[in-house]
Amino acid sequence: MTVQQEVRAAAAQAVKGTIWGVGLGPGDPELMSVRADRLLRGASHVAYFRKAGRSGQARRIVEGMLPDGVVEIAMEYPVTTEIPLTDPRYNALLSAFYSDCTTRLQALAEAGHDVLVLAEGDPFFYGSFMHLHARLRDLVPVQVVPAITGMGAAWAATDAPITWGDDVLATLMGTLPEEVLVTQMQQADALVVMKIGRNIDKIRRALRRAGRFEAAWLVEYAAMPDQTVQRLSEAEERITPYFSIIIVHGQGRRP
Amino acid sequence: MTVQQEVRAAAAQAVKGTIWGVGLGPGDPELMSVRADRLLRGASHVAYFRKAGRSGQARRIVEGMLPDGVVEIAMEYPVTTEIPLTDPRYNALLSAFYSDCTTRLQALAEAGHDVLVLAEGDPFFYGSFMHLHARLRDLVPVQVVPAITGMGAAWAATDAPITWGDDVLATLMGTLPEEVLVTQMQQADALVVMKIGRNIDKIRRALRRAGRFEAAWLVEYAAMPDQTVQRLSEAEERITPYFSIIIVHGQGRRP
Repeated sequence: MTVQQEVRAAAAQAVKGTIWGVGLGPGDPELMSVRADRLLRGASHVAYFRKAGRSGQARRIVEGMLPDGVVEIAMEYPVTTEIPLTDPRYNALLSAFYSDCTTRLQALAEAGHDVLVLAEGDPFFYGSFMHLHARLRDLVPVQVVPAITGMGAAWAATDAPITWGDDVLATLMGTLPEEVLVTQMQQADALVVMKIGRNIDKIRRALRRAGRFEAAWLVEYAAMPDQTVQRLSEAEERITPYFSIIIVHGQGRRP
Repeated sequence: MTVQQEVRAAAAQAVKGTIWGVGLGPGDPELMSVRADRLLRGASHVAYFRKAGRSGQARRIVEGMLPDGVVEIAMEYPVTTEIPLTDPRYNALLSAFYSDCTTRLQALAEAGHDVLVLAEGDPFFYGSFMHLHARLRDLVPVQVVPAITGMGAAWAATDAPITWGDDVLATLMGTLPEEVLVTQMQQADALVVMKIGRNIDKIRRALRRAGRFEAAWLVEYAAMPDQTVQRLSEAEERITPYFSIIIVHGQGRRP
């Protein structure tokens, strides 16, 4: 590179905006980080995922916080309900969607705009922002703001510690095969189970087989206005919504 | 109870202060929750653990945030370096210490004062506040403010997601026996190892035996001014301080 080219490259670099993956935490705006709060109140552009025709949970959390005139970029998931998760078309469709979002965000950053991508929970913990992060990180500046996880709000809601001493904590997705769930549930001291929804019967069976069912708590809508906390064994007939987390507390050593 | 007794009981209840377990997060004041920030800036009484003769990490994090005239309650750990962890005297000494702290905090709450107990990380995730919570919760009102964990700051520091799809995350303490570490490290997709210190050689051996050593990252002082991030395999000779966390990222499915 000539000196002129270097100067030009540096200038181009200097005016690029940053794509921020802003963790919003579990849902209560007071449980956001001070950094997230500050960024949101000064935002020029915010982007968020949502299902077509829905307002989106991430956008709802920041209601009333964004400045007037903020530019909003709604990234609407393609409809995949007809395609099974194991069908290669499912992955292809989502991959094309994330590529499209990447193109839109890259263009904004290259035009000098900072864009806050709203991420429920912590952006790097089973989050959708991760799919943008992986695609954007070599193209434009990307920053991540960590956050309180949904599971952290769930164990707070039970009003009891999740882990003591040298307890092993296993975080499990309800989408795992039953045999994997049973093995993991037997070998860990404390458990968090997420992605419950239609997997609830399998999860109940796995907890029973692992001898953990009686100690399990179901937290719905942790840190949200509709929060409920109850023993899973007393919630047999309930429909468990998407924002449900099962907690089994560790019982490790303590003075 | 007579009506008069009920009224008196209600009045006594009404003037009790609350003991707050306030999670401070990993160390950067901007990564505190908005709630923690608000409580701290309006505090009348703050309590915190520290070693004798030290200022204490929790107290350091809130430096410059507390109002003038705040009452500070330093709870100094008894010196236990001479007593092995397995000696019953170790537990007895700590138990007496926590009972003493409980008495002090209970008296303040019963005199009508709200007291913020400063808790590094999240109060219910391997925290010292848990020992006070267990003793205080039936005596006076106790509230907990969840927070970003040290491990959340550690995976953010690596600039890569910790878990994808249905990855299993195991959180492990370096104090565990080597065989337990190996089994857990083999069976989980993503790993977090904490309480490293003098356990580092055992942890390295366990990671090697489980085939996870090459993928391991060492994060020191996550979200603090001295933060470092490096592959564990390139940190062979380093002394690992107390605020170290080892991270092995999950590699689960992604579109």
